[in-house]
Amino acid sequence: MTTFSFEVLVTLKDGLSDPQGKAVEAALLALGWSNVAHVRVGKHIRLEVDAENVAAARAQVEEMATRLLSNPVIEDARVMEGASS
Amino acid sequence: MTTFSFEVLVTLKDGLSDPQGKAVEAALLALGWSNVAHVRVGKHIRLEVDAENVAAARAQVEEMATRLLSNPVIEDARVMEGASS
Repeated sequence: MTTFSFEVLVTLKDGLSDPQGKAVEAALLALGWSNVAHVRVGKHIRLEVDAENVAAARAQVEEMATRLLSNPVIEDARVMEGASS
Repeated sequence: MTTFSFEVLVTLKDGLSDPQGKAVEAALLALGWSNVAHVRVGKHIRLEVDAENVAAARAQVEEMATRLLSNPVIEDARVMEGASS
């Protein structure tokens, strides 16, 4: 068994209202950065999985991303192989 | 002026307690995934910046990441050039 590191990025689907992103955008504008737009706030999850090979590990992480880490109705989940932490 | 897309990943520094990560790890274990460890939950921010060139845009995003998007005392911020959304 080998330990693999992954990162999962969970973002709100385009078109859905993102009040947290709007709040961050307003704060950036208030600090003088007026050239910023389309701020969207999501989640970043880092984890480690023990598996026989990277393909098995990735398949498991994809399933965890869909079943627990994101709500597929309103969110997209992207799985990246991460640097070992 | 060109529009550049960036992603900022804000993660809790190693060594700091992450109750949200622990909760996610417990939920994954409860669903039967017992080979998962070191779950850490952070933030993912996507944004667009208008700038003359990518170097200027990245410098601005690095500054925004340190001054507003993260708390440098307890968090690390990583800036990535993102795919246009």
